[in-house]
Amino acid sequence: MSKELRAYIAGFLDGDGSIHVRLKPNKTYRFRFQIAPSIVFYQSKKERKYLEWMQKTLQKGYLRDRNDGIVEYIVGDQQSILWLIKELLPYLKLKQKQAQLMRETLLLKNKVKNGGDFLRLSKRIDEFQKLNYSKKRTQNSLLVKETLKREGLLTP
Amino acid sequence: MSKELRAYIAGFLDGDGSIHVRLKPNKTYRFRFQIAPSIVFYQSKKERKYLEWMQKTLQKGYLRDRNDGIVEYIVGDQQSILWLIKELLPYLKLKQKQAQLMRETLLLKNKVKNGGDFLRLSKRIDEFQKLNYSKKRTQNSLLVKETLKREGLLTP
Repeated sequence: MSKELRAYIAGFLDGDGSIHVRLKPNKTYRFRFQIAPSIVFYQSKKERKYLEWMQKTLQKGYLRDRNDGIVEYIVGDQQSILWLIKELLPYLKLKQKQAQLMRETLLLKNKVKNGGDFLRLSKRIDEFQKLNYSKKRTQNSLLVKETLKREGLLTP
Repeated sequence: MSKELRAYIAGFLDGDGSIHVRLKPNKTYRFRFQIAPSIVFYQSKKERKYLEWMQKTLQKGYLRDRNDGIVEYIVGDQQSILWLIKELLPYLKLKQKQAQLMRETLLLKNKVKNGGDFLRLSKRIDEFQKLNYSKKRTQNSLLVKETLKREGLLTP
């Protein structure tokens, strides 16, 4: 990507995008939660073509039509996220911290060996809520801790 | 401004900014309406510093604290608007039409000589509503027409 294109997309992400990680309860996963990282761009469905252009340009991710008239362009796989962060980080101004936290989270995720590691990872993920001024007050890590304990996955 | 900075700000404006012209009823004006053009950037007040940075960088406009927790960075004078459009236009993707319409509107405004000219200008301004997907259905130009007629400012 050209420098101008990287700067443009960084500006668009700062203005109206989102960098976050969700922890979804899922019993089929070893530690009972799925880790779902994503970088998301939003537009009204009237501007769907614009997000299609962005997807074609970046050659990553997919579009999702919500039922409230909003279209999301979601980059959700780890490799694409790390690539996109590498491209945008020098230009981001508002979401630089989120981008760095995402990078650290994914590195940490790849190193998880036991319940303790997973709990530490979930605490790191809690930090997104602060950075994103989320209204959600629940700390994911508390739920993770309870679950891991209950399932005997947290060795002392 | 560097190309990267121009591209970044264009991206931010495409994501979360606004380019529009308001027609405000005001009896002290010759044609009974004030024409208020603006380019506006929005952020939550927690990110006020970011908009301060933008204002310092562009050296135009001013910040306005709304009472709903949003801060606006407003570029509202004609000269600054035309300068900013010149800088951003090559990089805008979503709001390119609004930027061009703004430029044409300001040129037209400077040429207004009579009520007929002013009415044509107000029709041009109505086009912002379409481009911005405004929910407001009232056409400014209808109100302008009535007013000009009533005040005898529209010669046939």
